[in-house]
Parts: sequence; structure tokens; C-alpha cells
Amino acid sequence: MIVDQLRAIVGEAHALTGDAIEPRYLTDAAGGRSGKPALLVRPADTAQLADVVANCARAGRAIAIQGGRTGMCHGATPQDDEIILSLERLNRIEGIDAKAGTMIVGAGVILQSAQEAAAEAGWRLAVDIGARGSCTIGGMIATNAGGHQVMRQGMMRDQVLGLEVVLADGTVLSSMNQMLKNNAGYDLKHLFIGSEGTLGIVTRAVLRLRPPAIGRQTALCGLLDYDAVIAMLNRVGRALPGQVSAFELMWRDFFEAAGAIAAGGMPFAVSYDYQILIEVEAADDAPFVGILSELLDAGIVADAIIAQSDREVAQLWSLRDAIGPLVGSMTIVEPFDVSAPIARIGPLVTHLRAALLDAIPRCRPYFFGHIADGNLHLALDLPTDADRTVAEALVYNAVRDAAGSVSAEHGIGLLKRGWLGHSRTVEEIALMRTLRRTMDPAGVLNPGRVVETLTPGR
Amino acid sequence: MIVDQLRAIVGEAHALTGDAIEPRYLTDAAGGRSGKPALLVRPADTAQLADVVANCARAGRAIAIQGGRTGMCHGATPQDDEIILSLERLNRIEGIDAKAGTMIVGAGVILQSAQEAAAEAGWRLAVDIGARGSCTIGGMIATNAGGHQVMRQGMMRDQVLGLEVVLADGTVLSSMNQMLKNNAGYDLKHLFIGSEGTLGIVTRAVLRLRPPAIGRQTALCGLLDYDAVIAMLNRVGRALPGQVSAFELMWRDFFEAAGAIAAGGMPFAVSYDYQILIEVEAADDAPFVGILSELLDAGIVADAIIAQSDREVAQLWSLRDAIGPLVGSMTIVEPFDVSAPIARIGPLVTHLRAALLDAIPRCRPYFFGHIADGNLHLALDLPTDADRTVAEALVYNAVRDAAGSVSAEHGIGLLKRGWLGHSRTVEEIALMRTLRRTMDPAGVLNPGRVVETLTPGR
Repeated sequence: MIVDQLRAIVGEAHALTGDAIEPRYLTDAAGGRSGKPALLVRPADTAQLADVVANCARAGRAIAIQGGRTGMCHGATPQDDEIILSLERLNRIEGIDAKAGTMIVGAGVILQSAQEAAAEAGWRLAVDIGARGSCTIGGMIATNAGGHQVMRQGMMRDQVLGLEVVLADGTVLSSMNQMLKNNAGYDLKHLFIGSEGTLGIVTRAVLRLRPPAIGRQTALCGLLDYDAVIAMLNRVGRALPGQVSAFELMWRDFFEAAGAIAAGGMPFAVSYDYQILIEVEAADDAPFVGILSELLDAGIVADAIIAQSDREVAQLWSLRDAIGPLVGSMTIVEPFDVSAPIARIGPLVTHLRAALLDAIPRCRPYFFGHIADGNLHLALDLPTDADRTVAEALVYNAVRDAAGSVSAEHGIGLLKRGWLGHSRTVEEIALMRTLRRTMDPAGVLNPGRVVETLTPGR
Repeated sequence: MIVDQLRAIVGEAHALTGDAIEPRYLTDAAGGRSGKPALLVRPADTAQLADVVANCARAGRAIAIQGGRTGMCHGATPQDDEIILSLERLNRIEGIDAKAGTMIVGAGVILQSAQEAAAEAGWRLAVDIGARGSCTIGGMIATNAGGHQVMRQGMMRDQVLGLEVVLADGTVLSSMNQMLKNNAGYDLKHLFIGSEGTLGIVTRAVLRLRPPAIGRQTALCGLLDYDAVIAMLNRVGRALPGQVSAFELMWRDFFEAAGAIAAGGMPFAVSYDYQILIEVEAADDAPFVGILSELLDAGIVADAIIAQSDREVAQLWSLRDAIGPLVGSMTIVEPFDVSAPIARIGPLVTHLRAALLDAIPRCRPYFFGHIADGNLHLALDLPTDADRTVAEALVYNAVRDAAGSVSAEHGIGLLKRGWLGHSRTVEEIALMRTLRRTMDPAGVLNPGRVVETLTPGR
């Protein structure tokens, strides 16, 4: 019956069942684990979407909300009997205010389309992640996506001025604020940013735009110890405030593997325990070159290559981006995305490498990260699937002991729910559950994601 | 009985009644309107505070939460029979992590003390408001304070990494995150930032620090029309990205009144319809001077004075800061703090000036604001107290029609509650009430502030 109701709302062509549901709707970037969904619906607009949700709430039917399905934690992966709700048709760029630097977009707009539209209007949408060609603005808001530019421009949360959200009972909540400052009561948008669709479905957004880059300098530096990494971060942050746009740390294990497969090959004659790929946005490169030579003179940086052309910039970035092919070559990959206070990350990695090799002798760990944000990535190549359990416990226990987070960027979804208590207190999780229960008493929105729901939809 | 219970928790010296409650506890910066509080308690730490709240919740007694009482909306002003809960003794600066650029402070720490401690450690706490000598970090978080630096560093929300909060039943919620990135479940701190104590009492915070200024250039510019203001804002924002730290607009009415009383006198030979006080943080002043002369050549800026010494900087700022003495000289002051999309502010002011003078012929409006944030201030000198009602309706109706906010920085408190519906939708206010009811069912925390509570404490 619910199938007929929803079909009547969105039309035959956009209410699909069984084999008519293409495989791409059945998983996310983490792969696997799909159940058998009851239905796929693709509403044309907010009104249809709200109607779909209201009907699901009345029928007590669980919804799996989908943007671009580029998540890493099975948040969008449909489970048995769930109704897939795809936002792909809410893909209109409604307008850009070139005076104020704001844009209004539907949740289904692809990041790259939004970036290009902003650029055409003389502005920049300052979040960027590898999945830009397929991830959606709505999904990025729901998961508070991060990426390369966070240290300078913040996460997705910092790009959102206003939202339109469909609540669990089908109510359309319009909170399309366009101002940087609005202290008129609670700032409700923050409830929906990063809560992975469990408190409401983002359907439209007002985004803040930033001016385009006025120039860019890129360098690769080799450093001998982690204290030098912190010293360099603080020195460039102070000398070039608001201008450092990337500060990517690659530990030796990652860097040597990357150098072996990257287009540009290995740039240094030797490799160092720490490599930093740094990018600065400034009109003039003299201050950046000055700081680098000062850091070399002080012995903080042992070696440095400043890119002299777009080709050299691409070569340096190909090392960092080698994570793609590197992961592709692995037997069994466990991609960790954690964070910790910056000063603790160096010792954490040293400990983890030793502990992992001790517990799983044939594993191969590769460490890298957006270190200015306290964000550590570990791509772990495992000999057998059974090693996952050992590795996860080992990594997440160490992260907990370092007062870190088991999820820096990727969210919790279904995959990391068991580890939430490692980074959040009992009281925090209790309050998350209270909010979840209050705002979605029937448990229809992405049930089981983030925190378990006590009254899940059928 | 509750008085005895609370006295037993905090001790005789910090549980005061009747005339022992000094007058400063009875109002805020907006003045007036105090009721007769039942008791003042000053807990020594989070444990005592949680115990106080738990007892009040059990007894159904309303609490008026107080930081530095520098608010403008009677949020902290005690009403009849309320128990004043002052956080002044939670005033410890617990530590600064100079590597990561973070600090941990008690909610009762005075802003200026925190700023000075950060500076001593080689960092900067990048929020600054006029009340820095008496406002507290907890109050600034609860009200999401703004100020001069917002366009560059964000509001108080953007300085907060983690919080400790006492909930309405006395539960201590520890969410003392230290990382820039943490997507492990809901980011609960945003519930408490800007909700004016109605969802929980902030007791401690982890704050993000920024590097100190590496140099500062200040100029005053005269402009002929509002389009030029926007053109200048966009031009300097693009040419000096991340470096413009203040962009204060003063309309002619404000500027002429300020020039008549400011220490430095009137700097231009004539005054313009629009004056901009701009401040840039950069090591070298050449790019700033270059942009200004380009703007002069293009006719966007009609006149400009670049400060050549600290004395001249102080002179220029004395014009903007003349708002203090200006307000002091007024008969009856109505201080408006609103926001609107930037492009609409020029027409909004033109409309408001005419409409106010038409409705209240003897009033005198002075317009100024943090225009880059869309934040407009209006200090309105009124002939009689009865004119307030007319003025408020006129201003807030116009702000609503411009899709603006009735409170950019100051919050809602008790004073602006009647106007909340001008800037928030019915659905938004309903959700605020739901959150309020869920998180404080007994209505003990700042009852009546922001949204009315259905079950207020006695």
C-alpha cells in the first residue's frame, strides 16, 4: 500500500522496485552490505519529498536517504525493507547573489556543478573533496564534509548560512537565512549539519561563497621529526595568516609507496620521516619563499622543493593523490579517518605503527593526513578479512586514549556506530538519543545510523 | 526550604537574599525591569553548580543565569522569585596548549583576562566586544557574541571547540573536544551556543586561538553611494583575502554626530553619505595603499585618510567608538541591532530614516554597522518613552520585509521575544519550543527567555 501511495506522489517513472533499482543505489563508497530495499523514490521537489516522508511516517516505514552515495560509513546504504529516498532531482542551482557572495542550491546539486557556477559568478565555493564529481551538496551538509581547504575555510558547516529541511513527520522547515549574523533564537541549522539525515532531510541550502584565489604557491618539504612538523605549522600560520590553504603530512611509509606509483615519481633523492605538501594562496610568492628558506636555515625543514610550474604543482599533488591507486592495489583495505589534538598525533602514529605490526605482522600501514586540522588518515592493507576486528580495536582504543575522535570527517553511519562511545561520553550519547527520539519518534529517517533507534521503522 | 538546600551546597557566603544581593545582580546593560529574586547563589565549581540545578529542577524553581550581565535583552535580569545563579567563581584559566593553539577556561572568566592570557602565550583570542572588561566567556558563548572581528574570524561560535554544560536536571555534559574536526555523531555544542542558557548552562569551554596580528593598517574612506560601499567591500575582500579585519560603515547622520564629540574631531573637510572605517592585518602596507588608490582613481572612494601613527589610528576609531558618549547624551535611547542581506541594507536605511522621521518627527536616528556581516545598528533618540512601540514596529516590520533578522548579535532574551516571529518561521519557532520542552521540561533554565515556556518554574 505504501508503494502505491508513494508512486502516486512521485509518478511511475520515479518509484522503482526490485531489479528496476539500479545497483548504484545499493551501496556507497565503502562498498557492500546492502539489504533488499522495498522501493526507490525520486521526488521532483520539496513538496513531493515532504509528502513521501509524511506517508512513510504514518506507515512507520524506514527511509534510507541518498545524495551521491560517496559516503564511507554505509549511512546511505539501504537495509532490508527500507525505502530509498534519492534527492538527485532536487538539483537546481536557484541563484547566486554576486554582491553578497551567497548561492541558493537544491540538495541534489553535485558539488562540482556548484563550484563551477560559483566560479562563473566570480566567487568560490570553498569546500573540495575527491568525490566532487558525484557527491551532492545535501550529502555534504548532512555529513559535514571536510577536505583539503578546512584549515583556511572550515568544513561544510562553515559554508552553510541557511537550510530548508523536511522533518520526520513531513513538516517543511524553512530556515533559509542569508546573513553571517543572525542571533534570533536557536540557530537550528546546526542540528541538521553533520547529523547524517537522522534528524531531518536537507532539501535546499543557502551557501556562503568566498573570493577566488589570487595566486598559489606549492612546495614539498622533508622534515626529520614531528616537533619540526608542529614548528613549521605554527611558523607558516603566523607569518602567512589566513593564507595557508593546505598542509598535508605524509609519513615515510605512505610517501615511499606514493613515490613508487605517482606520475611524477620520487622528487627527493632520499625520503624523510615526514613530508609536508604545503599550499599558500597569495598574490606574491616572496613571503612564502622567505619563510621556507628561514625554516631551512633553522634546520626545521631538511629539504624543500617549490613548484615552478603548473606541471610541477600537479607532480607534487600526484604524490598525495596516490592514495587512490595505492588503495586500489591493496588486498583488504581498512580506511581509518580519525582526529586527535595536534601535539598527540606524532606519538599516536609511532605507537600505532608498532602495535599494528606486532598484532598483525603481515599488515602494511600507510599514514597521512590534513594535519593542521588534527585529522589523521591511515590506509591499512590487511592480509585477511578477520584482521579487521583486531585492527579496529587497536586503532580506536589508541585514539580514545589520545582524547581523539573515531571519525574526523566521514561520520558514523552504520559502520562506526559501535565505536561512538570511544569519542563521546555517556551523557553525550544519551542526549543524541533524546534528540533523535524527540525529532523522529517513529524512527523513519535513516534508522540505525549514528545512534541506534529504539523504535526503528519496519 | 530550597534556600536552605542551596545554602548548604554553596556555603553561607555565597547564598544571599534580600538586600544582601547587590544591585549589580539585578539588571543588565539594557537597564531596568528586574523582579524580586528569591536568592543569589555563587557556586564554586561545576559540581556545586550541578547540585544547585538538580535541586532547583526537583523543586520546580526558576533560575536566572548570570555571567557578566552585559547583555542587551534582559536575558540575565532576574524576574520575581527567580534564583540568580552567578558563574563568576568559575573563573579559572585552566590551561593553554601553545602547540595546538587552544585554551581551556571556566565560564566565568572575563573576556579581557582570556585575551591577555592568550596573548602571553603568543596567541590571540579573536573575539572582541566593547564589554571586554566585564563580559564572561560563558555569557559570550550562551549569546554567540559578535563584535568587530567577525568578518575575519567569525562569531563566538567559531571560537568554540568544546564545552562542558550542566543540563536542566543537573547532569554534567562533558563535550570538551579539542579538535577542528570531529564528526563522531551530533556536534552537540551548537545546541548551547547562542541559545541563551535555555537548553543548558555552559560551565567550561575549549577555545580555538589564532595567531597574533603581524601588522595593521587603518583608513577612513568617504563614499557617495551605497553601491560604492558594496563595490569597495568586494574589491578589498578579493584583493586582500582573509586580511580585512574591520569594515565599519557610518552613515552621514551618525558620522556628523560622532565627529562633533569624538576626541579627534571631524577628519574630512566635508562629510559623505557613507564613511567606512577599514582595518587590514598585513605585514606590508603597500598592497592596502595600492587598493585604496585604485578605488580613489575609479571613483568608488571619494576621499580617504590612511592613519600614519597609533595616535591617528586611535583618532579614527574614536569616531566609531563615539557611539558610547552619543548614546549617553540621548533622551530616550532605543538601540536596534538587526541584520539583512548586504545588498538590501542601503535601501533599508533610506526607507527607515524617512519612515521614522515621518512617524516620529522629533526622533533622531543614527545608523552604523558591521556592514560586511550584514549587521546594521541604529541608535534612535526618542522624544518620549511612548514612541518606542511605534519605532519598534516600524523597524522590525521593515527588517522582516527585507528578509532580515531582528537580532544580529544581541540575542532575544526577554526584550525581543515578541519579535522573534518576524525573523523565524512558525515551524522554526515550533522546533525551538520542542527542544526547550525536551531539554528542560520543568522550565527552570532562564524561563521566558527566547521562547515562552509552557511549564515555567514558580
